[in-house]
Amino acid sequence: MPVAQIHLLEGRSDAQKEQLIAKVTEAIAQALDAPEASVRVILTEMPKQHFGIGGQSAKKLGR
Amino acid sequence: MPVAQIHLLEGRSDAQKEQLIAKVTEAIAQALDAPEASVRVILTEMPKQHFGIGGQSAKKLGR
Amino acid sequence: MPVAQIHLLEGRSDAQKEQLIAKVTEAIAQALDAPEASVRVILTEMPKQHFGIGGQSAKKLGR
Amino acid sequence: MPVAQIHLLEGRSDAQKEQLIAKVTEAIAQALDAPEASVRVILTEMPKQHFGIGGQSAKKLGR
Amino acid sequence: MPVAQIHLLEGRSDAQKEQLIAKVTEAIAQALDAPEASVRVILTEMPKQHFGIGGQSAKKLGR
Amino acid sequence: MPVAQIHLLEGRSDAQKEQLIAKVTEAIAQALDAPEASVRVILTEMPKQHFGIGGQSAKKLGR
Repeated sequence: MPVAQIHLLEGRSDAQKEQLIAKVTEAIAQALDAPEASVRVILTEMPKQHFGIGGQSAKKLGR
Repeated sequence: MPVAQIHLLEGRSDAQKEQLIAKVTEAIAQALDAPEASVRVILTEMPKQHFGIGGQSAKKLGR
Repeated sequence: MPVAQIHLLEGRSDAQKEQLIAKVTEAIAQALDAPEASVRVILTEMPKQHFGIGGQSAKKLGR
Repeated sequence: MPVAQIHLLEGRSDAQKEQLIAKVTEAIAQALDAPEASVRVILTEMPKQHFGIGGQSAKKLGR
Repeated sequence: MPVAQIHLLEGRSDAQKEQLIAKVTEAIAQALDAPEASVRVILTEMPKQHFGIGGQSAKKLGR
Repeated sequence: MPVAQIHLLEGRSDAQKEQLIAKVTEAIAQALDAPEASVRVILTEMPKQHFGIGGQSAKKLGR
């Protein structure tokens, strides 16, 4: 019954997000020996000015 | 002084969200015997392609 | 399919926590017109020195 | 290696958010005697109807 | 630069948690085409009385 | 009315945590021009085996 929340920078395609959900669910199920059906995954996108790395936003850092 | 964060699929009306805040606040205050004024509620909406259930997004599952 | 996380100060009994889960689940289901079975609730306890209110911990404030 | 997530009401300028990231990173680094480069900050904006204070949204309260 | 937080029921061994970190990191890196070194994973354990499924705790449900 | 949650490795003293709450609250209030009294800070400690950096736990990495 694990619940995962993943914060990622915005800009990924829906296909990549679908892949992310599928692969992370599989990884959790394998590592914990739990049924995939019990896994929930929440994706939260961050605009580049909303993620700080060492005191500066990803936007300012040009990432 | 409880703080609740609720992740929900997007698409609810403002009236429903206002109801959600009111009812959850009341529920927390009653269960914990705490003043309603001390409760904070954060709603976070998820697009359907951002919530994974058993390895597939709610969008792909047609929810 | 809502997921709620509630941060509360530690010190509640298991009976109170069970009440909290029941009441918050019911509140969410009613407000969103969603089945109770689809609701997940995560409780996270905070020691009093881990919750800051206006710059001081609940412990220091004597709460 | 601390990770901070800050929920704030929407409506701040990018310059204020950049300030927020810089100042919070500096504060964490000083208090924990950790290198600034190791700090991550995630900003999450809330529309006014998504933040509840004592049972009503910030929007309804006119904040 | 993704950050993942995973809530799981307590009771897993350190070896399983190490596996979980490794596999989830790999899954995120592959799906997003990002370097593994940039991924952060936070595990948060829940006692069984702190996770509610459909209105009852995992403890009460005998999970 | 900002709410900050900070994940940090366990092992800090209560005095350091009190400092962390004070300094982060001040930083948020200054950057957002908000009253300190409105700021909430939640500290969440992580055991070293619960934080993954590039696929390995802080414990395994000897941090």
